[in-house]
Amino acid sequence: MRIGILGAGRIAKVHARSIAAHPGASVAMIADPCEDAARELAEAHGARHTADPAEVISDPEVDAIIICSPTPLHAEQILAAAKVGKPVLCEKPIAMDTETIDKLFADLEGLDPQVMLGFNRRFDPSFAKVRRLVDGGVIGKVEQVTIISRDPAAPPREYLASSGGIFKDMTIHEFDMARFFLGDIATVFAVGQNLDPELADSGDFDGAIITLTNADGVAATITNSRHCSAGYDQRLEVFGDKATVNADNIRETTVQVSTGEATDAKDPYLDFFLERYDAAYRLELAEFIDAVENKRTPSPSLKDGAAALAIAEAAEKSARTGTPVTL
Amino acid sequence: MRIGILGAGRIAKVHARSIAAHPGASVAMIADPCEDAARELAEAHGARHTADPAEVISDPEVDAIIICSPTPLHAEQILAAAKVGKPVLCEKPIAMDTETIDKLFADLEGLDPQVMLGFNRRFDPSFAKVRRLVDGGVIGKVEQVTIISRDPAAPPREYLASSGGIFKDMTIHEFDMARFFLGDIATVFAVGQNLDPELADSGDFDGAIITLTNADGVAATITNSRHCSAGYDQRLEVFGDKATVNADNIRETTVQVSTGEATDAKDPYLDFFLERYDAAYRLELAEFIDAVENKRTPSPSLKDGAAALAIAEAAEKSARTGTPVTL
Amino acid sequence: MRIGILGAGRIAKVHARSIAAHPGASVAMIADPCEDAARELAEAHGARHTADPAEVISDPEVDAIIICSPTPLHAEQILAAAKVGKPVLCEKPIAMDTETIDKLFADLEGLDPQVMLGFNRRFDPSFAKVRRLVDGGVIGKVEQVTIISRDPAAPPREYLASSGGIFKDMTIHEFDMARFFLGDIATVFAVGQNLDPELADSGDFDGAIITLTNADGVAATITNSRHCSAGYDQRLEVFGDKATVNADNIRETTVQVSTGEATDAKDPYLDFFLERYDAAYRLELAEFIDAVENKRTPSPSLKDGAAALAIAEAAEKSARTGTPVTL
Amino acid sequence: MRIGILGAGRIAKVHARSIAAHPGASVAMIADPCEDAARELAEAHGARHTADPAEVISDPEVDAIIICSPTPLHAEQILAAAKVGKPVLCEKPIAMDTETIDKLFADLEGLDPQVMLGFNRRFDPSFAKVRRLVDGGVIGKVEQVTIISRDPAAPPREYLASSGGIFKDMTIHEFDMARFFLGDIATVFAVGQNLDPELADSGDFDGAIITLTNADGVAATITNSRHCSAGYDQRLEVFGDKATVNADNIRETTVQVSTGEATDAKDPYLDFFLERYDAAYRLELAEFIDAVENKRTPSPSLKDGAAALAIAEAAEKSARTGTPVTL
Repeated sequence: MRIGILGAGRIAKVHARSIAAHPGASVAMIADPCEDAARELAEAHGARHTADPAEVISDPEVDAIIICSPTPLHAEQILAAAKVGKPVLCEKPIAMDTETIDKLFADLEGLDPQVMLGFNRRFDPSFAKVRRLVDGGVIGKVEQVTIISRDPAAPPREYLASSGGIFKDMTIHEFDMARFFLGDIATVFAVGQNLDPELADSGDFDGAIITLTNADGVAATITNSRHCSAGYDQRLEVFGDKATVNADNIRETTVQVSTGEATDAKDPYLDFFLERYDAAYRLELAEFIDAVENKRTPSPSLKDGAAALAIAEAAEKSARTGTPVTL
Repeated sequence: MRIGILGAGRIAKVHARSIAAHPGASVAMIADPCEDAARELAEAHGARHTADPAEVISDPEVDAIIICSPTPLHAEQILAAAKVGKPVLCEKPIAMDTETIDKLFADLEGLDPQVMLGFNRRFDPSFAKVRRLVDGGVIGKVEQVTIISRDPAAPPREYLASSGGIFKDMTIHEFDMARFFLGDIATVFAVGQNLDPELADSGDFDGAIITLTNADGVAATITNSRHCSAGYDQRLEVFGDKATVNADNIRETTVQVSTGEATDAKDPYLDFFLERYDAAYRLELAEFIDAVENKRTPSPSLKDGAAALAIAEAAEKSARTGTPVTL
Repeated sequence: MRIGILGAGRIAKVHARSIAAHPGASVAMIADPCEDAARELAEAHGARHTADPAEVISDPEVDAIIICSPTPLHAEQILAAAKVGKPVLCEKPIAMDTETIDKLFADLEGLDPQVMLGFNRRFDPSFAKVRRLVDGGVIGKVEQVTIISRDPAAPPREYLASSGGIFKDMTIHEFDMARFFLGDIATVFAVGQNLDPELADSGDFDGAIITLTNADGVAATITNSRHCSAGYDQRLEVFGDKATVNADNIRETTVQVSTGEATDAKDPYLDFFLERYDAAYRLELAEFIDAVENKRTPSPSLKDGAAALAIAEAAEKSARTGTPVTL
Repeated sequence: MRIGILGAGRIAKVHARSIAAHPGASVAMIADPCEDAARELAEAHGARHTADPAEVISDPEVDAIIICSPTPLHAEQILAAAKVGKPVLCEKPIAMDTETIDKLFADLEGLDPQVMLGFNRRFDPSFAKVRRLVDGGVIGKVEQVTIISRDPAAPPREYLASSGGIFKDMTIHEFDMARFFLGDIATVFAVGQNLDPELADSGDFDGAIITLTNADGVAATITNSRHCSAGYDQRLEVFGDKATVNADNIRETTVQVSTGEATDAKDPYLDFFLERYDAAYRLELAEFIDAVENKRTPSPSLKDGAAALAIAEAAEKSARTGTPVTL
């Protein structure tokens, strides 16, 4: 499969590397308005490049598209690809607001698009195993899900300004993970925190506690922070009536040091998301390629992306008003 | 110190055993309306017994009182002991409602009572160490506290009926633990769950997720369940800007079994609270005796008990109405 | 059961405390040539005292004897107790050499003595559970046993001089533990180390690696050191054809600290043997009392003590000659 | 760097994959007497193939050689490559006996060959980190090294017959690991076990315990088994006067399952060596390429291979005679 990539930034590089490592795929063409970036990444992979994403989408030697461009461009690029019948793997989030998504769904009507959303964490080997344990009945009826997600350090203030806020930018992954185990979410209650003095006037939260429930009363708790001294803290626990299952952080080695001060001290957490979710990105790509080749609907879908964004908007509203929001 | 115990039930036995193991204290007298129970426990400790708690309170050879009677009796017994100037260690909660507590505080006015509340978990060696790490600056500024507390199995339905509900009966310990790290609580949001089919019509919740914040925006999350297949699940994590510190469950041994199915499989959690918090009960008693001997105000205090009950009432209200409650 | 204790030192205090905590036993009398020590310990337990151990052994109000005197006195005191038909719990080792033990066995001929050897580690809850897993078939056929035992810090040089050497003083516990899983030992190969500069001219080893095999070819490896910066390091692993089972060190709390330098850092190991094996001492006493009351042969027996000493002598010979020794 | 591979078997595939993933190297040519195997692997990597290893060694478009052929061919192929001045990465062991190695060293005299031995475990991220902690002074003076290495299941009997025996085939890796921390070995004592009924008459051991010491009295213990129900068991512990450091097994995920039977049960160990040491193989190749490019002597060297084989022969002799062997 010859794949075109829209964007040549950090996440585009990850996907290009995953494609190179996949036995059945190659990087065909890369588009980025910053043509130097496009050229550099293209050359590293023996691919062509352009400044214009439309060229990639229409190129006859490009079989599928991965969208790694800025969020405001996602919807139009999904639509353009759908119009020429090309499968798309689109980075999250689909858009910055649900209006844009509603319009996209309307525009896509009748096009039968094959679009996969880049919620890579569903493919993390540990989280995926937790899900298999649920599917296999090991956990029993899921009752409570506890998700902890903390970044190692806050991004630059300028990034925050255009990020869409913590819920759309960071928690969106946890909202999808909650949906992975709870299905559709019925209520959202979010507490936003502003504890980092450096971000005091950023207008965004730097920490958050969110409680989600589904129609059956199953609850998920998400704890977020924009900083964590111990590293990139990514944990999940699913509690059911038969078992409790958790996925711990990943370390670079299994070394443990014991001295008179502390024993069994382990490495810091694997840091940052490109390393922590390295396997997840590769497995996500494999699922995309497999779905395209077998003409299956890939999962997570565009609807999953829309649902996560709706929760993010509800969380923002809840945190701002101090009241729960019903979806 | 010669100690009188009001009540001869399960928790009274725990305290009697702790007193016997303490080098500076002895069980002097035990009162229980069920005189057989009082006699049996008294004989095991070489103590006197009676059916009437007032006798214990007024006995000249009783220096201090431990109240292990049913909750509705706590307030009057505290008052009676205060009137004769005897120190009291009272089991939680003080009362079933804040009105009773308010009246108690009014009645105690001018009596300068020495009363300690039985929030034994503050004395659990692991939780106490987490607190010392906070005090010592290791954790930095506390930002998020995560408490998980699940009972191994639901109590009998008849117990539930008179328990006062999950928040006053079970979560009250977690509310105190949240206050141990956050101080006074400003807002409470609680989600009640009713997932256990056996308890469907009990009128009580069998699971709960509670989010608490203090005036500085620090948040605590509590996850409760009345059942847990893996045992009595009691965990605490405190996240600060310098470190994350957690206290794990306790097992009977350090044995780990590795087979082709699973590796490093440990014992089930220590079960139930008498075993899990065995050391905590002993250390709590030691603190009580030390405070009395040195005429210090013991901690946790009557006010701590009142504050925890106020949170429990707010949580009940929040869970019933679906809205956060401000304290 | 009224128990007399010969000796009033560190280990005598441990046994006195265990007796006090046992519902069916009391400390009756304590003998120590240092009469002040005997008096002090006796008074703490409401017991009588004497400078002469013979008085305790013959006292009609003493039902059983615990021998905590220096090793050179053990054999004669066991014999004296056996002659008056009193059960004995004797601290390890029985004697400093096998000749003394052979003579003791000859002297005991016909006396049918009830003697238990103080190999307390067999009663450690974790090690005992490993043994139960072997007995229950979980581990399958035992093939390899790995024992690590390191003291937190070397004892004073003067202690070492009279200790009988590392194998009789320290490793004797591991030799018994190896026998606990392998039964009779057939061959011994020991490497002695002298790595601590402070002990360079002590004439004793400060570290040792011992390989033991039984007649079926099952092997045990023991790694000893007189010092360990991380604390008192006491671990056991049993490998069989169905499972590998290990018992880890014990810590005072379950607290784990995570920072940017290290994550999940735990407490140092519980330190020293009085704390680490506190439960083992209590359970050992309970077994002794139960065996006496039910007129059972207590285990570990005098023969177990003799066997461990024979291994210690073989290990010393092996380490000094550099060749394996066959038992 | 254009690399030729001698052999097209299991380990050749591993190296070919590592080469493909390395940004500065490519597979140029593959030789295997089974030409179909050579063709298949060559085609997967866009390389040429041949039945004759001499062709690869002499090919002008091959810059370096990786020897993955059967052990009896290693010495002559190393020599052939050295004669044409090509760097070699040779799989372990160099040869089946030290005579062959002595002859090889004589033949190589004056050729200044650049040969690296495939002791890939030195590059395992965990073991390498333990070594860095030693080098960095964290562990202090190394005193005792404990290595546990157990295969998940015995290889076929026909493999065993030509394997050279457990010490040359399996333990050779541990011998190198012991040398990684102890340097030159002075004495070897080995106990061979024959516990697997299926291998009773194989003439080889299926388990072994080896004690090694260096001239300074530092000791290493190796515990081997040809089978392990829990998987491929690969652990290392280094004890020094400042710290104890261990490297645990690796699992596929960080998932832990807790039920009423067992808690925190983890995945089986990563299994088998291709998976467990996947990163080690890649990092080994990177070191080889870097050493070649920078004209450095690669490490581990041919001498390291010779030293490990000498220990293996000493271990075999010790296990067969029951006496220690001095090197």
